[in-house]
Amino acid sequence: MPGDIPDEELRRALHRAADLIADYVGGVGDRAVLPPIAPGEVIASLPARPPKTAEPLESILDDYERLIEPNVGHWNHPGFMAYFAISGSGPGIVGEALTAALNVNAMLWRSAPAATELELLVCDWLREMVGLPSDFRGHINDTASISTLLALAAARHAQTDLDIRRLGLAGRAEVPRLAVYCSDQAHSSVDKAMMALGLGHDNLRRIGTDAEFRMRPELLAEAIEGDLAAGLRPISVVATVGTTSTTSVDPVPAIADLCREHRSWLHIDAAYAGSAAICPELRPHFAGWERADSIVFNPHKWLFTPLDCSLLYVRDLDQLRSTFSLVPEYLKTGDSADINLMDLGVQLGRRFRALKLWMVIRGFGVEGLQERIREHLRLARKLASWIEADPSFELCAPVPFSLVCFRWCPAGVEESELDVSNARLIEAVNARGPVFISHTELDGRYVLRAAIGNIRVTEEHIRRLWRSVREESAALE
Amino acid sequence: MPGDIPDEELRRALHRAADLIADYVGGVGDRAVLPPIAPGEVIASLPARPPKTAEPLESILDDYERLIEPNVGHWNHPGFMAYFAISGSGPGIVGEALTAALNVNAMLWRSAPAATELELLVCDWLREMVGLPSDFRGHINDTASISTLLALAAARHAQTDLDIRRLGLAGRAEVPRLAVYCSDQAHSSVDKAMMALGLGHDNLRRIGTDAEFRMRPELLAEAIEGDLAAGLRPISVVATVGTTSTTSVDPVPAIADLCREHRSWLHIDAAYAGSAAICPELRPHFAGWERADSIVFNPHKWLFTPLDCSLLYVRDLDQLRSTFSLVPEYLKTGDSADINLMDLGVQLGRRFRALKLWMVIRGFGVEGLQERIREHLRLARKLASWIEADPSFELCAPVPFSLVCFRWCPAGVEESELDVSNARLIEAVNARGPVFISHTELDGRYVLRAAIGNIRVTEEHIRRLWRSVREESAALE
Repeated sequence: MPGDIPDEELRRALHRAADLIADYVGGVGDRAVLPPIAPGEVIASLPARPPKTAEPLESILDDYERLIEPNVGHWNHPGFMAYFAISGSGPGIVGEALTAALNVNAMLWRSAPAATELELLVCDWLREMVGLPSDFRGHINDTASISTLLALAAARHAQTDLDIRRLGLAGRAEVPRLAVYCSDQAHSSVDKAMMALGLGHDNLRRIGTDAEFRMRPELLAEAIEGDLAAGLRPISVVATVGTTSTTSVDPVPAIADLCREHRSWLHIDAAYAGSAAICPELRPHFAGWERADSIVFNPHKWLFTPLDCSLLYVRDLDQLRSTFSLVPEYLKTGDSADINLMDLGVQLGRRFRALKLWMVIRGFGVEGLQERIREHLRLARKLASWIEADPSFELCAPVPFSLVCFRWCPAGVEESELDVSNARLIEAVNARGPVFISHTELDGRYVLRAAIGNIRVTEEHIRRLWRSVREESAALE
Repeated sequence: MPGDIPDEELRRALHRAADLIADYVGGVGDRAVLPPIAPGEVIASLPARPPKTAEPLESILDDYERLIEPNVGHWNHPGFMAYFAISGSGPGIVGEALTAALNVNAMLWRSAPAATELELLVCDWLREMVGLPSDFRGHINDTASISTLLALAAARHAQTDLDIRRLGLAGRAEVPRLAVYCSDQAHSSVDKAMMALGLGHDNLRRIGTDAEFRMRPELLAEAIEGDLAAGLRPISVVATVGTTSTTSVDPVPAIADLCREHRSWLHIDAAYAGSAAICPELRPHFAGWERADSIVFNPHKWLFTPLDCSLLYVRDLDQLRSTFSLVPEYLKTGDSADINLMDLGVQLGRRFRALKLWMVIRGFGVEGLQERIREHLRLARKLASWIEADPSFELCAPVPFSLVCFRWCPAGVEESELDVSNARLIEAVNARGPVFISHTELDGRYVLRAAIGNIRVTEEHIRRLWRSVREESAALE
């Protein structure tokens, strides 16, 4: 009888994995953040063809230890300050392991009662934690890319006169071009949603931003008016609270006014910054988001929850349901459950993602999570203060959360040469190993980004970053 | 300093989780498949509000054991024969636990070299295992819903004269309605993709099937001709190898001929059955799939890999890339890597899903996986033979793989009453606990479905199912 691997082999392997994980998470900070390998090296080190016969889990884990673990980018490293610094915290990792063992597909309440209900519960917990009113209801998607796509699909579906779900967008004289608005700092997931939804990339209006990289509402108003005059129909504005490049915050109240005026769907992308709303003193950054139709935020970004976990809150769950619900015969049940999660989006298969999030919230408590977010803000302000105090560097954007944008601008170097200098600097800093930062472009300038958000980051890591930056810049001079 | 939970607490919790998992997976077969609870009971048993302060992982795990684990539907139970029976096998569970600890986002090669390269490698392994030519290149998505959506987006993008990515579908006189074809047995993910992509549900043509639930190519040809005459443009046919209701197999060679004739994109949905192609003797069911433009199959369905893991193979990777690739400044790297996985779809965030699949393939070996698939086919044929031998029951569809569709048709009962009788029967069978089956509708009839595919299923489970069905039907008579 074939079956699974023997119970005792599995138990042994799980205990070995437990130690591998504890060792990894506890010691990852001593490694270089990025492995010093070139494209193709991992593949070259592995057999090109699949094994004919079973191998013991012990030797697979040996290979994991030898070939895989050392050769990932160490996102769980406290010196990983590129992109957004994320963490799979202890409670979250334990939750994911259990999720894999249960292996439920929470498509229907019936197929996974505890998974469905825990998902609704933790979304309610988080809604309360971030101070949103109780008419918002949440569910969990894999990524913000999907959450935003679903939100814009619901915005499109809200054009009830057009019956787009049934008839589509093409070949219909009565369907005008549908326009969506976001700032020139908004995330590329908005572009991808436009492309996927058949709305067309050109019908995304990227509205200009002010000196602090916030959408300018008067330009938004102009763009909407222009589109209306040209026969387009504005269907949604995506406002960002915490943009990717600088964590700037769009002026949501003014944008919400325009959305109300034009009956446009207001979607808030708070994928990164949403977690900060659990600290009441940071709520002013979120002013007006309670007027949104939908809000996305990702506990896998800054709430210490392993990938993937993206929360989508909508004010009117039925609007989302009517966009996508479709129940084939084989999934009909007689249950009276309020919600079958499959009705709320594209994907039928749904992992039990709520478990890890539940364990994270309980493992740290609301106050513990607040404490960590606040510490990251403190560290970001500290780094920003060092930058501001050094005449060879400049801060390139305000620091409302925990991301610091800066560049090297040594005396006597022409503006035209600074981009190249900073590109060289980041390469040198990252090559040292203990920290990894990324870059962006602001107002046409090459700018360095240090994202602080890993649960194990300490002041020492920030000092190390600053030391690297200063030493490497001195060496380049 | 806040940080993660203490290393030693994490290590203890991981070891406890190791035992919880080993106990669960080893003993799940002794439980009822579905928990006997009503909607709302789990939520009612949990605190409505999040905890202010941290709780020890030990007590969270106590609650997990008491409230969560018993109250999921036990998809990993060998008596779970509803929908498609799936398994998170031992090697796969270990892989997922490690994935959570690494917590890499494999969006860029640079951000996760081993994750990117292992994904390409295992997709190549599986391509070889299922006998597809080497010009197919694969990557891993979360679900078949997304894989199929991406494939149809690529089919839409292949209408190069229309520049849909940039200009969209709406408000353009030159864009005709775009039609997609699948059989009346195809999965609802095709409907959802039509809705999401803005193509319109009405522009999905559900082609009639023959007595064995296979798409009728002559009806497909007619539908295409009719659409062409009406000014629509056919862009894709989705052929299914292993439909959800009966695992019927569409006549792919004839469909491929029509696709070539009309320059339509051929997408093969083999989400469930694809795994069977690792057995050479089952390849005849897959005849012609090597002519497809894209193929989806899900190792999380019948290859013992925990959710989620859906492989999308395309013949021309650049076509997929040009549909979605979009690289914002902050993600530009100087690396020469062939592939950044984020370019191949909507989602920027990508879990390291290849790790578990690599561990599954190695943990069982190609021959071990073949042996398990063959055993499931043997069990399905056995069940089918019992059904055929019993005059009170009838087999309702051929059994090419491991799903058995049947119904109770006791002598003397009118056809018009059989639906109700079978609905009562399934309710009684499922209420007993040790097995869980689902139903579907075939030719307007209510039909029971027994899906065999769990890695721990044995002949005893099939006997138990058949005993339940016979005893409960006798009791209902």
